[in-house]
Amino acid sequence: MTFTDNIGSAAATLTTMAFIPQVWKIWRTKHTADISMGMYVLFTIGVALWLTYGILIGSWPIIMANSFTLVLASAVVAMKSKFG
Amino acid sequence: MTFTDNIGSAAATLTTMAFIPQVWKIWRTKHTADISMGMYVLFTIGVALWLTYGILIGSWPIIMANSFTLVLASAVVAMKSKFG
Repeated sequence: MTFTDNIGSAAATLTTMAFIPQVWKIWRTKHTADISMGMYVLFTIGVALWLTYGILIGSWPIIMANSFTLVLASAVVAMKSKFG
Repeated sequence: MTFTDNIGSAAATLTTMAFIPQVWKIWRTKHTADISMGMYVLFTIGVALWLTYGILIGSWPIIMANSFTLVLASAVVAMKSKFG
């Protein structure tokens, strides 16, 4: 991998993994009042489109990163629906 | 633009714009207790790396989407630092 590829991989890893502490925090506290439902609905639809885009262009890094993020962002939407 | 380009553009627009309702919600309520600082620190670093990647490969869509997201994600970090 080139230096540029490494930067891209680090970027994808961080923007995907970032949602883990948020999912964990909500799971632990059951509190979501300060979280914007609008944000997570738009973000989840956007990530689903990124996944579609990855499939259309046949890019495994885009498919993998966005599959993982889709699960995490959907979990926030589900928990926000449940906990309010 | 091809169909695939349109899907990618819609994806980029949604995952960038998604942060606006969250920034607005925090600005309005001054409450950030349920927001994970870990998430926004990792996400902001990741977006800064996406911006670097966009500059390295000369991709204006990546540069523009991530510049905008960097401002919004940094605003959440700043407000979380202030409001706790």
